[in-house]
Amino acid sequence: MKYISVILTGFGNVGHSLVNILNSKKNVIAGQYKLDIRITAVIGSRYAIIEEQGIDLQRLSNCDKHSKGIQQYGKCLYEIVNSKDLLEKLEADVLIEASPTNIETGEPGFSHIYTAISKGMDVVVLSKGALVQHSKEIQEFAHLKGARVKMSGATAAALPTIDLAQYNLAGNDIYKIQGILNGTTNYILTRMHKKNISFTEALQEAQEEGIAEANPKLDIGGFDTASKLLILANTIWGTSLRLKDVALEGIENITREDVAAAVRDDKTIKLVGEAVRESYGVRLRVVPIVLENSNILTRADYKDKAVVFYTDLMGTMAVVGGASDPKAAAAAALKDVINLFR
Amino acid sequence: MKYISVILTGFGNVGHSLVNILNSKKNVIAGQYKLDIRITAVIGSRYAIIEEQGIDLQRLSNCDKHSKGIQQYGKCLYEIVNSKDLLEKLEADVLIEASPTNIETGEPGFSHIYTAISKGMDVVVLSKGALVQHSKEIQEFAHLKGARVKMSGATAAALPTIDLAQYNLAGNDIYKIQGILNGTTNYILTRMHKKNISFTEALQEAQEEGIAEANPKLDIGGFDTASKLLILANTIWGTSLRLKDVALEGIENITREDVAAAVRDDKTIKLVGEAVRESYGVRLRVVPIVLENSNILTRADYKDKAVVFYTDLMGTMAVVGGASDPKAAAAAALKDVINLFR
Repeated sequence: MKYISVILTGFGNVGHSLVNILNSKKNVIAGQYKLDIRITAVIGSRYAIIEEQGIDLQRLSNCDKHSKGIQQYGKCLYEIVNSKDLLEKLEADVLIEASPTNIETGEPGFSHIYTAISKGMDVVVLSKGALVQHSKEIQEFAHLKGARVKMSGATAAALPTIDLAQYNLAGNDIYKIQGILNGTTNYILTRMHKKNISFTEALQEAQEEGIAEANPKLDIGGFDTASKLLILANTIWGTSLRLKDVALEGIENITREDVAAAVRDDKTIKLVGEAVRESYGVRLRVVPIVLENSNILTRADYKDKAVVFYTDLMGTMAVVGGASDPKAAAAAALKDVINLFR
Repeated sequence: MKYISVILTGFGNVGHSLVNILNSKKNVIAGQYKLDIRITAVIGSRYAIIEEQGIDLQRLSNCDKHSKGIQQYGKCLYEIVNSKDLLEKLEADVLIEASPTNIETGEPGFSHIYTAISKGMDVVVLSKGALVQHSKEIQEFAHLKGARVKMSGATAAALPTIDLAQYNLAGNDIYKIQGILNGTTNYILTRMHKKNISFTEALQEAQEEGIAEANPKLDIGGFDTASKLLILANTIWGTSLRLKDVALEGIENITREDVAAAVRDDKTIKLVGEAVRESYGVRLRVVPIVLENSNILTRADYKDKAVVFYTDLMGTMAVVGGASDPKAAAAAALKDVINLFR
């Protein structure tokens, strides 16, 4: 049995789900992978729990999420002045970074990740911001410090994208990637197609169902798709492209008429993120495309995601599906931890 | 740079392709993965080349495939009395087993694999027979000897199946697998659907195009699909099921009328391999199924393959595509070698 100590930053939907999964799968993980994964610290935005022997996951999973839940746990509780300073003082094998993300500053994720790497810890990243802003810097610093960085949960959560490219397609030259990487926009477009409603109506429905946020700009405008595409491209090709390098068009201007016209032609409109390696560099765009219904990307409906990789040796490879919920994202982080230490 | 010595058994289409790829990708593999992969022996059915410093891949890739090519290489040539005995005398880091397969005896692959494992070598398996007949035995013997076994090329070649289950879905409980695992039958069914021709006509076309073999029984009867399904199920769930445990129905009795009826209902007939973990054990069947066109498996046409995994944490995950040719199968073996030693 290999003992793995974990610091978890962020105790929102995904962090809480991860605690639930680690608690309920403890025996399976021990039996199948010979791993004893213990969370020794949970660092929220206001409070932290620190237990060197491992936090009682059963107890914590019964608490609410966010700071309220951390307070409920009660034992070994610390009020946070600065999460980076706190992290500096702690030791563990791996940091799982699941703080709320800000794709413009990359914080607080970047500070957490940088601190962990400087201490030689491996990092499993769920929050996109730091990777969007500092992908190459993180990779290079990790290389320097002998730390490893995994990021399945930061691209399309449950759907394998980064790990598919790096592991299952090892040895291949990937020259193009196309994907439906955002569940919210795909949900809205699917509703527009199936119910012949307007963008505004579909968005409102998605908001009522808790799928779109009150401020849906990041999803609707294509920024979330662009962020994931950027992380994929920069990680796979070692480039250091920025959000401003992505030609960006959201779905807010797609009309009922556009959808009706596509349907008449037996086609489907999807918001597609596309990365193409050209001779002069990598070209990135996020744009609504009218796809033939024979295109595999049209098989991803509602919150489903899909990615297609174009390779030199293995042809075209598509992955479709994967749940889009906090549990699935947490499972992506668990997968990364298992694959780091199995 | 890590030096990896490889013994290759089998120099047919796939073995020859592997030599080509290793030759042309030498610099890429060195740069990206820091691996210097050298083939130190190629063991065909009648002749072997043994060069401790590594075979000249450029020279060998210019030779024909099969025994003829091995003879053309000329240098360091041995006539084989017994390939197992020869293998016994050799040392290397990994065996890549790509001999012609016999799914009823598992030979000569099984002897090769067993000998390599007994010497503590890791094994990358491309030939299905040994795994169909002796999956659990091989796994247990490898575990005992501290050897590792990879088998991407034995299930659906380029399409990630085993490695998707073991790596990308690590930590998940997989409770069902459905797949289109045989390119030949899928090609025939696709032709019947698109051209409204009979099974006999479609088979004949496939034979003329070199897609179906002169004796197509293994493909048409579902045995190839059953073999791959069996390897997947036994590896993922640790069962020791046999070919006789697979409820088997081929595509030979599908008529033009069956296809026409399916098309009328906006459906598609596919030969599906299905493994379901029930409370009493694992149930396996290979059977033509009339699928709704919304089913992702209907996106695999002609020689395409597709697999859907049903999981507890990550929902449903489908992979579709992947080239079906000797180069793609060889690339699957290369991927396994890289992932063993990266």
